[in-house]
Amino acid sequence: MPKLRVHNVTISLDGFASGPDQRLEEPLGEGFEIAHEWMFAALRERAEGRRGIDVEYVERGEHNIGATIMGRNMFGPVRGPWPDESWTGWWGDNPPFHHDVFVHTHHLRPPQPMEGGTTFHFTDEPLETVLQRAYEAAEGKDVRLGGGAATIQQYVRAGLVDEMHLVIAPILIGSGERLFDNLGDRIDGYRVEEMVSSPAVTHARLIRR
Amino acid sequence: MPKLRVHNVTISLDGFASGPDQRLEEPLGEGFEIAHEWMFAALRERAEGRRGIDVEYVERGEHNIGATIMGRNMFGPVRGPWPDESWTGWWGDNPPFHHDVFVHTHHLRPPQPMEGGTTFHFTDEPLETVLQRAYEAAEGKDVRLGGGAATIQQYVRAGLVDEMHLVIAPILIGSGERLFDNLGDRIDGYRVEEMVSSPAVTHARLIRR
Repeated sequence: MPKLRVHNVTISLDGFASGPDQRLEEPLGEGFEIAHEWMFAALRERAEGRRGIDVEYVERGEHNIGATIMGRNMFGPVRGPWPDESWTGWWGDNPPFHHDVFVHTHHLRPPQPMEGGTTFHFTDEPLETVLQRAYEAAEGKDVRLGGGAATIQQYVRAGLVDEMHLVIAPILIGSGERLFDNLGDRIDGYRVEEMVSSPAVTHARLIRR
Repeated sequence: MPKLRVHNVTISLDGFASGPDQRLEEPLGEGFEIAHEWMFAALRERAEGRRGIDVEYVERGEHNIGATIMGRNMFGPVRGPWPDESWTGWWGDNPPFHHDVFVHTHHLRPPQPMEGGTTFHFTDEPLETVLQRAYEAAEGKDVRLGGGAATIQQYVRAGLVDEMHLVIAPILIGSGERLFDNLGDRIDGYRVEEMVSSPAVTHARLIRR
């Protein structure tokens, strides 16, 4: 059975998945950009042919993925109705997905095909419907669920997430959006399969019992 | 200058320092006992002459400590007025402190001397006064601050804590007392100096900037 998987979701040591006051200039909230430095470093390492725990986890997140789902805030900083269709994501003309990407938003717009096989689909359908569409688009492969925290929480609450790979960054944020919040009893359905530190961060893998 | 140091405070991966429904039979709250298994394992390892990251961190917490402060819940499960003075802590007749231990409680009782040099003092004085007494008792050594979470939060909010060693256990609790809560902006005054995993847990050391 194909799975719904979360990968590389970075939280601060004090548990936040984004900082306070998210806005165009600080899309992850104040002070949170640094939380993702480990990933940029891992991508540089890989480009140089080096290996390591962080590179390994980045690659696990790319393995056997046929479609992606994300919240609108992960797609871009625009809030409210789209002023036009010029914003096509953070990733340039050839995004690294190379498959169908489903973006949850109340503000619909036509599908946006990009170079390299990525197409962004904008949807306000229920989670289950979006996930079904993603599984169909993935043609037997798994579906990856991106952030932000609220999107992940919704899918966990709905009992739809099979695996979560989280990354604890050695920073303190103090306020913002907690990842482990609004989950009710659903978190009881998971166990921590693995927890391991690289020199930069700690990786934790949660799987459904 | 002597320091106020926190050591071995264990939190779940989802950020809780105790589980829900603390009571006599479950002094750490439901499901939380397992969070401290790493420490019992480390103490066994040390007794067998083995070393490792966990043993090293346990020993750091014993180094150069001349007095201890703790909240009442760390001293025992009794709530409200003491029915008598028969409860003398979780640690038997010869507790492992071997120095003065200050227990915050609204219910005073006479100092309780124990074998091996430990004396429990019960106090409802302000934090600053208790800390001053502890520094005097420590005679130039550092003071160690025990839990629970509420006690640590109070000392952090008052700007009195110099170092914190936290331990992230690979468990999910779902509810209870969060360690990183009720801290306001005070957490901005700390940085993560170190984060490293043993096979059992992840250790993080926070120091005041």
